[in-house]
Amino acid sequence: MKTRLYSKIPLAQTIVALCQAKGIFHIVISPGSRNAPLTIGFSEHPDMYCYSIVDERCAAFFALGIAQQIKKPVALVCTSGSALLNYYPAISEAFYSDVPLVVLSADRPIERIDIGDGQTIRQKNVFENHILYSANLYSEVVAETKIKDIKIRQKQHEAQKHNEREINLALNMAIAQSGPVHINVPFYEPLYDKLQEPTITPKNIPVERPLPYISDNLQSEMISAWTQAKRKMVLIGVNAPEIIDQKWIEELANDPSVLVLSETTSNIHHETHINCIDQLITSLTQEEFSALQPDVLLTFGGMVVSKRIKAFLRTYQPKSHWHIDSKKAFDTYFCLTDHVKLNPNDFFLRFLPQVKPIQSDFKSFWISIREERRKKHKEYLEQTPFTDLKVFETIFGVIPNGQMIQLSNSSTVRYAQLFSLNPSFKVFCNRGTSGIDGSTSTAIGAAIATKTPTTLITGDLSFFYDSNALWNDHVPSNFKIIMINNNGGGIFRILPGKEESSNFSKYFETTHHLTAEHLCKMFGFEYHTADNNEDLIRGVKEIYQNNNKPQLLEIFTPRKTNDSTLIDYFKYFI
Amino acid sequence: MKTRLYSKIPLAQTIVALCQAKGIFHIVISPGSRNAPLTIGFSEHPDMYCYSIVDERCAAFFALGIAQQIKKPVALVCTSGSALLNYYPAISEAFYSDVPLVVLSADRPIERIDIGDGQTIRQKNVFENHILYSANLYSEVVAETKIKDIKIRQKQHEAQKHNEREINLALNMAIAQSGPVHINVPFYEPLYDKLQEPTITPKNIPVERPLPYISDNLQSEMISAWTQAKRKMVLIGVNAPEIIDQKWIEELANDPSVLVLSETTSNIHHETHINCIDQLITSLTQEEFSALQPDVLLTFGGMVVSKRIKAFLRTYQPKSHWHIDSKKAFDTYFCLTDHVKLNPNDFFLRFLPQVKPIQSDFKSFWISIREERRKKHKEYLEQTPFTDLKVFETIFGVIPNGQMIQLSNSSTVRYAQLFSLNPSFKVFCNRGTSGIDGSTSTAIGAAIATKTPTTLITGDLSFFYDSNALWNDHVPSNFKIIMINNNGGGIFRILPGKEESSNFSKYFETTHHLTAEHLCKMFGFEYHTADNNEDLIRGVKEIYQNNNKPQLLEIFTPRKTNDSTLIDYFKYFI
Repeated sequence: MKTRLYSKIPLAQTIVALCQAKGIFHIVISPGSRNAPLTIGFSEHPDMYCYSIVDERCAAFFALGIAQQIKKPVALVCTSGSALLNYYPAISEAFYSDVPLVVLSADRPIERIDIGDGQTIRQKNVFENHILYSANLYSEVVAETKIKDIKIRQKQHEAQKHNEREINLALNMAIAQSGPVHINVPFYEPLYDKLQEPTITPKNIPVERPLPYISDNLQSEMISAWTQAKRKMVLIGVNAPEIIDQKWIEELANDPSVLVLSETTSNIHHETHINCIDQLITSLTQEEFSALQPDVLLTFGGMVVSKRIKAFLRTYQPKSHWHIDSKKAFDTYFCLTDHVKLNPNDFFLRFLPQVKPIQSDFKSFWISIREERRKKHKEYLEQTPFTDLKVFETIFGVIPNGQMIQLSNSSTVRYAQLFSLNPSFKVFCNRGTSGIDGSTSTAIGAAIATKTPTTLITGDLSFFYDSNALWNDHVPSNFKIIMINNNGGGIFRILPGKEESSNFSKYFETTHHLTAEHLCKMFGFEYHTADNNEDLIRGVKEIYQNNNKPQLLEIFTPRKTNDSTLIDYFKYFI
Repeated sequence: MKTRLYSKIPLAQTIVALCQAKGIFHIVISPGSRNAPLTIGFSEHPDMYCYSIVDERCAAFFALGIAQQIKKPVALVCTSGSALLNYYPAISEAFYSDVPLVVLSADRPIERIDIGDGQTIRQKNVFENHILYSANLYSEVVAETKIKDIKIRQKQHEAQKHNEREINLALNMAIAQSGPVHINVPFYEPLYDKLQEPTITPKNIPVERPLPYISDNLQSEMISAWTQAKRKMVLIGVNAPEIIDQKWIEELANDPSVLVLSETTSNIHHETHINCIDQLITSLTQEEFSALQPDVLLTFGGMVVSKRIKAFLRTYQPKSHWHIDSKKAFDTYFCLTDHVKLNPNDFFLRFLPQVKPIQSDFKSFWISIREERRKKHKEYLEQTPFTDLKVFETIFGVIPNGQMIQLSNSSTVRYAQLFSLNPSFKVFCNRGTSGIDGSTSTAIGAAIATKTPTTLITGDLSFFYDSNALWNDHVPSNFKIIMINNNGGGIFRILPGKEESSNFSKYFETTHHLTAEHLCKMFGFEYHTADNNEDLIRGVKEIYQNNNKPQLLEIFTPRKTNDSTLIDYFKYFI
């Protein structure tokens, strides 16, 4: 049996040991020399799952995808210099989506910064604006543990204690607060020396988790407001599947005064939900808006996709807006009254048994409107030509049960909101920053971290932007990509004031003539195409029949008519 | 004739007008909605060269390449959110390479940050660690200029004055200090409204440039030290072609006590220079190092590539180290005595006429050693098999006169240092942060900004990392890429302590089996290959014969023998 080796550098040993102690076992490594002590330490560890990804931008989104699924921190390891900065888009996404990531950036010792050494930048606190914690470590002067000089020994000891404390703080923060942290790790050379036994046993400071708590005062106020309100709205943002107990969903559904609004990314399904928000409110009159205005708005989950519901609630504000989240509450509608620092299950457990359903026609009225919308939706789609809108209807009808669906930004996730998705789908989208930048890498990371078969639905710009995502040895053979190619940023065609000018197609729509065919050949994906509905149905079925290599289906839609089909769709409800 | 249109938003008009006033005419735009007022303003301007690049990471390096050539700021325009963060690798490169870039990031108004709106992050001061100036602007409450409410008019007026001042400060800083600045530009909706006439004429505050100055005191001290020193070393870092007057190069060459060390990226050539530093000092004994130790070290230019010369000068320190640069001086050798804040020509004009050549055998001794090295180099290369080292000899021998050569990091630029390059080449490399991340984008930007035909020489990791660089409508038809594919990060094979293990090839070398063939088909490059010296000579000639579309030559070298050839090369000098 191969002997496990350790980096000779105590700081590297410390980091690996503390990651292990805290249950961090997924490590995404980008090549480099300065990070060799960490690469050695992690890759030699028998319990660590290490992944090698060259492009750090992709590496970070890939790590985000894993962490999104396992709900535990994933570590990123890179060399010094600009390598680190390529992580930033994914870090900001993790920051706003509450995904735990641990960035371990190797660095040169502090006296080598800004003196003209290569691959050396100001890494300290470089993610300041979007990070839960930045730990800046000391490098040991020498890696030897048997130093005779007592002063140097003392210094080494103090540095080690500082480092252990900072690493514990950062890792505990990533775990307890579920977000990104940055640990900057300077190393002296030599970087490649190894040992058969570790020389350091760092102290693991356990994560402290506050007990769920809500004050009696707040609770009784909320019970009173809830009980008096005839119109209560529950709006669910981005929410991972299987988080909320179905029991609470049923209790909410049983109250005629409660209207629940959910999105595809809410991953909660009930026949009484308004699950296509834009469809419902797109054509409302002022009077109807007033009728929809809730007395109490209860929200949980992350970002809300629908711009229309935000605009509505900012204008027709509820008397009370409560956000239920153990970590943070955004005042999205400029009327937040209370942030209840509990996770939703803990809140519902304390709250719902205390309140009773109230007679009201609030829910039933809006469900009846919803039924009308559904009828109209069906009518419109039946006569819709082959355009983006039609494509989404078709693919959602053919994708088999039980898929994890990863949606890219931005038209993809918006189109998806217009359909009642198969409740067996688990739906994810990087809505923290809503960037087009790392959807494919995230989807691949998510796919390898779960046994659920995974499909990425993406647009052409988002797909080509993150094409290096495919440069990855870990893509599962049953991974699918459905890419809707409308030759550019089709979303811009829906803008007010856009005109058919060369400036428009060049700088907004950014038209191109690229296809995914060559990338598929390069990276070993089986390539399929469709440009009409029959071929599309056949194509979607085909990609799910073949699971011995990753499949990509590219759908060509008519650039110039997609927008009018969508605009007319919304008009159809008037 | 088409009428020029203006954004209705005064802030957008202000930015476009001030860019024009300061001679900023190259604008790299990435698609987005929030940045529409700027996109409209710039793309409608008849004097602006606008480029549309979707991937912001590539866009920023592309802009860097243009600015590297024209030595004037290039503006980057992007939408709000993570888009901006993708600029960061290029910004840090610009920061350390003193390349002027103006980042214009559209943003939502400040009250929309951190409330759950999409594509919204904390953009204010986000590049803090690596930026010359961050201007945070105010958005107008309304775009109307004829507001009746006097209080709102007053506020608008103050915001406008603040914005003008901040934009002037930022742009002037980018010009005077030659580096990156960030202007964050929040816009209210509506974003697409246009006007036939501008409503604002902003005030242009001229750039202040300090007159060249050196104190009499410092100058006479330097003259005295220089005159007394029998061993003077001039070491030239990264330096653009045609910057230093040849006259001063000749004067330095005429002094037997002055030894000039230059690199390929110094773009200065003289028969008396040590232009292959590593070749010279690789096998020196302690005695010889002592003989090379200068009394005075005069440096100018940016980063130095050779690690060996840095290690040497840190150990064998000169009594005086002067760095000549109008902006900054790194204490690279931990013995900097003076930073002379002049550009080198201004310094030489004031200094060299005041000093006389001194009798010394310093230069002649080292030139004679250099001659021995050159002989050995030739001998070794004659019997070298087809490996990376041989490839560099061959290609440098065949590339035609007068090319601009863009080198990628890191083995490429290091191999290039081992050869005496054709003096008609103009050589560039992103040595500010020495990242592998944006070499291709930079080269394409540089190529479009100059009439000099351009060749990028790159390695496989650097090339695939920046493959989106090819997603660019502006690639000149005479642009060439020579890519040396050794199936991974060959540079890691030269490391001390590396061993032939699966961990090594996976996490350090990151082996792969990719080729550029599919990317060439995708992006319209003509593709050539070579895997032996004869084909290589033919291949290089071929790519220069065809100028009607971009050409790429991929050279396959033997992964496992490249390192031993290089290691033996250095041993051969002992």
